[in-house]
Amino acid sequence: MGKKALIIGAGGVSNVVCHKCAQNSEVFSSIMIASRTKSKCDAIKETIKKSKYAGRIDIQTAKVDADNVPELVALINEYKPDIVINVALPYQDLTIMDACLETKTDYLDTANYEPLDTAKFEYKWQWDYRKKFEDAGITAILGCGFDPGVTGVFSAYAQKHYFDEINYIDILDANAGDHGYPFATNFNPEINIREVTANGSYWEDGKWVETKPMEIKRVYNFPQIGEKDMYLLHHEELESLALNIKGIKRIRFFMTFGQSYLTHLKVLENVGMTSIEPIDFEGQKIVPLQFLKAVLPDPASLGPRTKGKTNIGNIFRGKKDGKDKTYYLYNVCTHEECYKEVSSQAISYTTGVPAMIGAFMVLTGEWKKPGVYNVEELDPDKFMDALNKFGLPWIEDFNPELVD
Amino acid sequence: MGKKALIIGAGGVSNVVCHKCAQNSEVFSSIMIASRTKSKCDAIKETIKKSKYAGRIDIQTAKVDADNVPELVALINEYKPDIVINVALPYQDLTIMDACLETKTDYLDTANYEPLDTAKFEYKWQWDYRKKFEDAGITAILGCGFDPGVTGVFSAYAQKHYFDEINYIDILDANAGDHGYPFATNFNPEINIREVTANGSYWEDGKWVETKPMEIKRVYNFPQIGEKDMYLLHHEELESLALNIKGIKRIRFFMTFGQSYLTHLKVLENVGMTSIEPIDFEGQKIVPLQFLKAVLPDPASLGPRTKGKTNIGNIFRGKKDGKDKTYYLYNVCTHEECYKEVSSQAISYTTGVPAMIGAFMVLTGEWKKPGVYNVEELDPDKFMDALNKFGLPWIEDFNPELVD
Repeated sequence: MGKKALIIGAGGVSNVVCHKCAQNSEVFSSIMIASRTKSKCDAIKETIKKSKYAGRIDIQTAKVDADNVPELVALINEYKPDIVINVALPYQDLTIMDACLETKTDYLDTANYEPLDTAKFEYKWQWDYRKKFEDAGITAILGCGFDPGVTGVFSAYAQKHYFDEINYIDILDANAGDHGYPFATNFNPEINIREVTANGSYWEDGKWVETKPMEIKRVYNFPQIGEKDMYLLHHEELESLALNIKGIKRIRFFMTFGQSYLTHLKVLENVGMTSIEPIDFEGQKIVPLQFLKAVLPDPASLGPRTKGKTNIGNIFRGKKDGKDKTYYLYNVCTHEECYKEVSSQAISYTTGVPAMIGAFMVLTGEWKKPGVYNVEELDPDKFMDALNKFGLPWIEDFNPELVD
Repeated sequence: MGKKALIIGAGGVSNVVCHKCAQNSEVFSSIMIASRTKSKCDAIKETIKKSKYAGRIDIQTAKVDADNVPELVALINEYKPDIVINVALPYQDLTIMDACLETKTDYLDTANYEPLDTAKFEYKWQWDYRKKFEDAGITAILGCGFDPGVTGVFSAYAQKHYFDEINYIDILDANAGDHGYPFATNFNPEINIREVTANGSYWEDGKWVETKPMEIKRVYNFPQIGEKDMYLLHHEELESLALNIKGIKRIRFFMTFGQSYLTHLKVLENVGMTSIEPIDFEGQKIVPLQFLKAVLPDPASLGPRTKGKTNIGNIFRGKKDGKDKTYYLYNVCTHEECYKEVSSQAISYTTGVPAMIGAFMVLTGEWKKPGVYNVEELDPDKFMDALNKFGLPWIEDFNPELVD
C-alpha cells in the first residue's frame, strides 16, 4: 500500500524532500518531481540514484508550469498522486490548491501565499479555501517547513504535554553557518532584503504591535552556538499561533543577523544595487538587483562550503497546575552534516524534512481530515517522533535563558 | 602682449582653469579648450560667457585626441599657443609633451604620467624628458595642481623664508564636503578604490617605507573643519620633495576618509561590484565597475549639492638659527563658494586655480627656463601672492597640532 507524492519545485528544499521520501520508503513508494525546468528535476533524481537509498522508490520527473491550473490538473490526473507537496514559489500556492481541489488530492506547502504585487504575506487567501477543502473531503496542510511548521508542532506539543495555558512564546531562529564569502545570500537576495527592511511586528494582548525595521535587537546565548545578535521580525506563523494557542498574551519571532551581513545589505541598498527599478545601461534596461544576483556567489554554490550550525526553537512561558512554567524546545542542525547526507545545507534541510513528515502524517491518516489546517491544530506526537527519526532531533530545556 | 593658452581636457578642473584664465585677462588674451568631446568644451565656453568675466578674453574650442601626437601638433601649429595646460588624463602626459617638443611650446600639467597598464605612478617617465626640453629651450612644469602643486610651492616657501633645514613634512588633505548622498564618488570610483586598496608609503631616512593599505590612521583636528580620521597614503609629490628639500628626514601624506565611505567601498569590493573583469549577464559581457558607475550618482551632479570645506596644507618641522621650528601652511576652501563662483566644487577648484597660476608664472617669465621642473624647484613668492589673489588664500600657524 505504498503512496505516491507529486513534489512541485526543484530547488534545494525539493531536493531534501525527495531524499527524505526515499529514506521513508515504508510510506512512499513513488515520487514525481515536477517544475518549470525538467533538467533540475532530473538532477535531483540523479543524486538520489547515487545515494544509499537508490532503488528504494520509483522516481519520475516532469515539466510543469505551476502558475497554470489546467497543466497542473493534467499532470495530477496522469500521475494520480496521493498528495501534492508544494515546494515551489509562494506566489503559486493558490493555483496548486485549485488543481488539488479539481482533482480531489491532498495538499501540503511550506510557506503561505504571497501575491506577486505586494510585500504582504498572510494566511487570509489560503484560509478562504477551508470550506472548499471540507466539501471536497480533502486535506490541506499549510506552512509545514521548520518556521513555520515545526515551530507550530512544538507549540502544539508544549500545549498538550506541559501547559494548562501558554502565555508567552518567543521563536528564536539562529543560523551560525559560515560560507567563507564576505557576503552571499542563501536564497534570493530580494527576499533577504525585504526581511530586514520591512517593519517588524509581534502579537500582544490581542493585537499586532508594529516596530520599525530591525528596531528590536536582543543578544541571546544559543545552545551549541553561543551569543548572537537577533532581531525581531514579523513571521507568518505568528498569525496562526496567535489564533490557535489558547491563553496567549504575547508571541514574538527573532532571527539572527550578523553585523557584517547587515552592513553589506545596507550599503547595497544605499547605492541602489538592491533596486528593482530598471536603469539605463549602455542603451538597455537592467534591473540593479538582477545584476547584483549575477555578481554574488550562486546560492547553490554555498552548500558544500557552509560550516556551522543552526538552532531554531520556541521558548514557552505559562502555567501548569497553577504554577509558572518555562520550556524551551529546539533543534540544532549542522550544515556540513546535512550536505553530506542529502547534498543540501541546513537551511533547505530544516525546511524539507518537516515537509516530508507532514505529507507522511497525512498519508498515514494521522493528519487526514477534510479542511485547511495549520500544523498546530493537529496532534503533534507522531510528528515529534518522526523529527527524531528523520534527522531533526529536538532538545528540551526547562530552565532556559529568557528573552527580555 | 596678451598670451594664448591651449587647455587640453574638458572636465571639472578644465572648467576652473578656463574661468581663472578669464579672470586673469591681464595675462591671458585668448584660450582654446580642446578635448575628445567638443561639446564639453563648448559647454565650458558657455558658462564663462554667462559669467561676469564674459568678453574679457577670446575663447575657442576644438576637438582633439590627446593620445594622438600628430593631431596635437596640428592643433598647436594652427592655434599657436604660448603654453599648453594639460588637464586631460594622466595617461596622456607623454603624448602632449611630445607634441610640445615638436612645436617648441611650453607645457604644464597637474598629475604625473601613469601608464595605462600599471597602477604605478612616478615621475621617472617625465623626468626623462629633461634634456629634450632643455635642448628645445622650452619649459615643462609638472604636477601644478594643489597636491601635488601648491604643496610643493608651500615647501619652497617654507624653505626660503623660515628654515635653514626642513627635517619633517606632513602633508594633510582633508575634505569635509557633504553631498547628502549615502555614497558617491567625486570622480572615477576606480581611482578612489585604487587609492584605498593600494599599499601606502612614506619617505624616511633616505628610503621608502611601505605600509599596508590604510594601515596608518591618525585623527587630526583640522582648522575650520574639526576632527577627522586620516590615513597615510602614497602620493606623487613625496617622490620629488624627497629629492628637492635639503635635509629632509621624513615626509608623509595623509588624506581624510570617513568610516562610512570606507565601509561602502569595502562592501562594494567584497561583493565584486568594483571588479573590472567582465561577467556574463543575460548573454553579454558587463564590467561590474561600469554598472556600479551607472547606479551611483553622476559625479557632475555633486557640485551644486556639496556643502562644507576642504583643508589642505603642510606641517613643516626643522631648524632655524640652530633652534627647532614648526610651521603649518594651509588653505581652506568652501565647496559651495567655489560652485557659486565657477560652477565647480572645491576638489576641481583647488586643482584648477594653481594650474592657471603656474601657467601665468611661465608666461610672465618668472618660471620660464628650459627644462622639466617640479614646482618646489622654482621661486615660490609670486605664486604665493597669486594664490591669495585668485581664490586660494593661505594661512600660517607657528604652533600647530603635530601628527605623531
